[in-house]
Amino acid sequence: MSTFDYSDLATLAGEFGPEADRLSEHLPSWLDAVPDAVRRARQIASLDPPERARVLRVLERADLAELLDHASPHDGADVLADLDAPTRALALTNAAPDVTAEILRLLPDDDRDRAQRMLPEDQQRVVAGLLSRPENSVGARMTPHVTAISEGLTIKEANRAARAQAADTETLAYVYVVDVDGALVGVMSFRDLVLAPGDALVHEVMDTDLLSVDADCDQEQAARMLIGNHLFALPVVDGGRLIGIITSDDVADILDEEFTEDAERQGGSNPLETPYLRASPLLLWRKRIIWLLVLFIAEAYTGTVLRHFEAELDEVVALSFFIPLLIGTGGNTGTQITSTLVRAMALGDVRLRDMGRVIVKELSAGSFIAITMAVAAIIRAWTLGVGVEVALTVTLTVAAIVLWSSFIGSVLPLLLRRVGLDPAVVSAPMIATIVDGTGLVIYFEIAKLIMF
Amino acid sequence: MSTFDYSDLATLAGEFGPEADRLSEHLPSWLDAVPDAVRRARQIASLDPPERARVLRVLERADLAELLDHASPHDGADVLADLDAPTRALALTNAAPDVTAEILRLLPDDDRDRAQRMLPEDQQRVVAGLLSRPENSVGARMTPHVTAISEGLTIKEANRAARAQAADTETLAYVYVVDVDGALVGVMSFRDLVLAPGDALVHEVMDTDLLSVDADCDQEQAARMLIGNHLFALPVVDGGRLIGIITSDDVADILDEEFTEDAERQGGSNPLETPYLRASPLLLWRKRIIWLLVLFIAEAYTGTVLRHFEAELDEVVALSFFIPLLIGTGGNTGTQITSTLVRAMALGDVRLRDMGRVIVKELSAGSFIAITMAVAAIIRAWTLGVGVEVALTVTLTVAAIVLWSSFIGSVLPLLLRRVGLDPAVVSAPMIATIVDGTGLVIYFEIAKLIMF
Repeated sequence: MSTFDYSDLATLAGEFGPEADRLSEHLPSWLDAVPDAVRRARQIASLDPPERARVLRVLERADLAELLDHASPHDGADVLADLDAPTRALALTNAAPDVTAEILRLLPDDDRDRAQRMLPEDQQRVVAGLLSRPENSVGARMTPHVTAISEGLTIKEANRAARAQAADTETLAYVYVVDVDGALVGVMSFRDLVLAPGDALVHEVMDTDLLSVDADCDQEQAARMLIGNHLFALPVVDGGRLIGIITSDDVADILDEEFTEDAERQGGSNPLETPYLRASPLLLWRKRIIWLLVLFIAEAYTGTVLRHFEAELDEVVALSFFIPLLIGTGGNTGTQITSTLVRAMALGDVRLRDMGRVIVKELSAGSFIAITMAVAAIIRAWTLGVGVEVALTVTLTVAAIVLWSSFIGSVLPLLLRRVGLDPAVVSAPMIATIVDGTGLVIYFEIAKLIMF
Repeated sequence: MSTFDYSDLATLAGEFGPEADRLSEHLPSWLDAVPDAVRRARQIASLDPPERARVLRVLERADLAELLDHASPHDGADVLADLDAPTRALALTNAAPDVTAEILRLLPDDDRDRAQRMLPEDQQRVVAGLLSRPENSVGARMTPHVTAISEGLTIKEANRAARAQAADTETLAYVYVVDVDGALVGVMSFRDLVLAPGDALVHEVMDTDLLSVDADCDQEQAARMLIGNHLFALPVVDGGRLIGIITSDDVADILDEEFTEDAERQGGSNPLETPYLRASPLLLWRKRIIWLLVLFIAEAYTGTVLRHFEAELDEVVALSFFIPLLIGTGGNTGTQITSTLVRAMALGDVRLRDMGRVIVKELSAGSFIAITMAVAAIIRAWTLGVGVEVALTVTLTVAAIVLWSSFIGSVLPLLLRRVGLDPAVVSAPMIATIVDGTGLVIYFEIAKLIMF
């Protein structure tokens, strides 16, 4: 038996699944072989539904709660659907309330109400509080359990008080100090609680210079505040009263979500807001088609430009050979700039007042790029054997288009921010579309100057 | 005085800067008005150099160390350059060793050696250890100070031992347990240290089921392990021996860096690896020109395709009107897919074995999109008044190109992963370039079928 590979649950479930006793006998070896709880949760979630149901049936109660805590909310909802009603109630009761709330948020209204009613009354209240907050606010994402002690206690009493609350708090690092009204007035680390003399008073030892966020605060803003200040947790207040904490493990999820949205916007679609494999073709269509149509309409302008220069095109058909190359190069140059710039703006590295520096920097870099690409264009025109006039036109156009899209690419994201829009909507397709039509005008105007 | 706005250091430095005494008198009000240490560090770093030098001169030693700990490494290096040699030595000595190492990494070799020699001997050794590791490894990024206790101690003795180490450790959350050889054998939370009975033995209470990472481990992998498991810190081992920890505030920096690199790759350039505003035009040129030239050479193929169909173009010049629109739509469709898919792969949501599902999903979504765009194309051809044959050609081509780029966009990132490359290099410009040339072939083959 020692040669059996316990690191993959699918193999294990395939081998011992149908015999529930043997499966449950072998599960501990799997738990040992895969110490990473996230990998465990993923392995369970990605089993085929009948196998998953078999595994869930033999999991211990503690393992079930751990599973929900470490699975993505979507996976958690799948797992819940596999459980019978009493086990489902038990699993939800044992899971952290913020995890429960995130899973419930994904259910249809009816199912959500039914699942909520299965929770013990105090937990129902806590979960309902989380669900009542707007989805991207700190209040919706926080851990509502927090170790709080009164400022008037001694360290020894505080230790006792912390001990009494320890069973139902997620916080490892901090103990928050509140006044008689529940208002947040200070913080102590668990370390301070260990190290301070037992007869000192909490309000003598506590640190009053602490950061907190309002429950309505945007979650990304709170995440950046937490990590930038090297904190493990940030207390959440509502009208000054301590109502929860947001911890650094939430931060990574928040940043991942925000970056996914930006990446999707940059690719020219609206954010899916659901894991890719769960998105139906119709959802994909819906998130993508609007931008495609907008860009199609904008791009249709290129047809008008080309028809306007029909006489020139008819006379020198070789001009059309270079259309995709020229506008493509313009789009590529612009996309390189916007992708870098939009990200720098998201990080807060570039702000509105840097607009002048950005334009100067990009036009300087653009000049170097224009010269390099012009050389490449001469070589290409020569290899196509199109004659000196066309070659000259193409070379000058490449240089002009590179500079033009450098300008557009550096100005547009900043202008959007200026009018209060998210610069991430300046997608690669949008830049390409803008440069296509205008680039053609540049091309044919240069051609007319040189050839006609 | 109460109406003065203390939230912006630039205003403060402009008002009181030249009089050092008055500036230092007003700094505490600024510290109060801006409780977020990261914002403080940013405000200091973005002052004009002479003003920054004046502010630094009146900052207290503790504030200086805090500044370095919260500034980006680049800002930290700037600040150091402003200080006189003794203050610089003091600031570096007081900063966390991982912060010091990150700043020193940015300096030229000579300056780095000189700065290292200014540190106290034990710190020199620690910093040299960090600098000796490869840049993206956990070992380069970890905090080398970690609270470690022996497994044979009682909880009471462990408390004393933790207290003795507390002054020079960054860890708030965990105490690691080592055996006589320094090998990591367990972990206790500071909370356990408070809550466990004083006469229990550490090795009875400790949790032996703990995760750790090897010092050579890639930092992104370690970051995802840490956050996925809801940990505040992850111990770093070298040959089993505990040598440091990586904490959750490092995670956000690591994820931000990785996101930035992916965003830059997706935009078709090589990662800058430096904050945008610090990148010189020549650096921008260097990071961008290689891809631009590669794509230019690939795109040059479109000229060959068009020359191949010169006769058709000459006969029906109206065909050329639709070239940018058709290939643009193809590029947009493909970019939407790759940007979503590459991100889903980075998150681990999509893996190689999902290739079949991805292709089916994208071809289904692509069919809906093809139908919608074909309708848009009919309308556009009709408004340009190009005749039935051209209109039919354009309509069929739009549908075919959308399906073709859906296929390319869904297969390419997975194929790259298959051969061990980073799918993030499938940039928007790359997809556009691939679809441009092949899309033209589709266009003219359909045109030949219908018209010639």
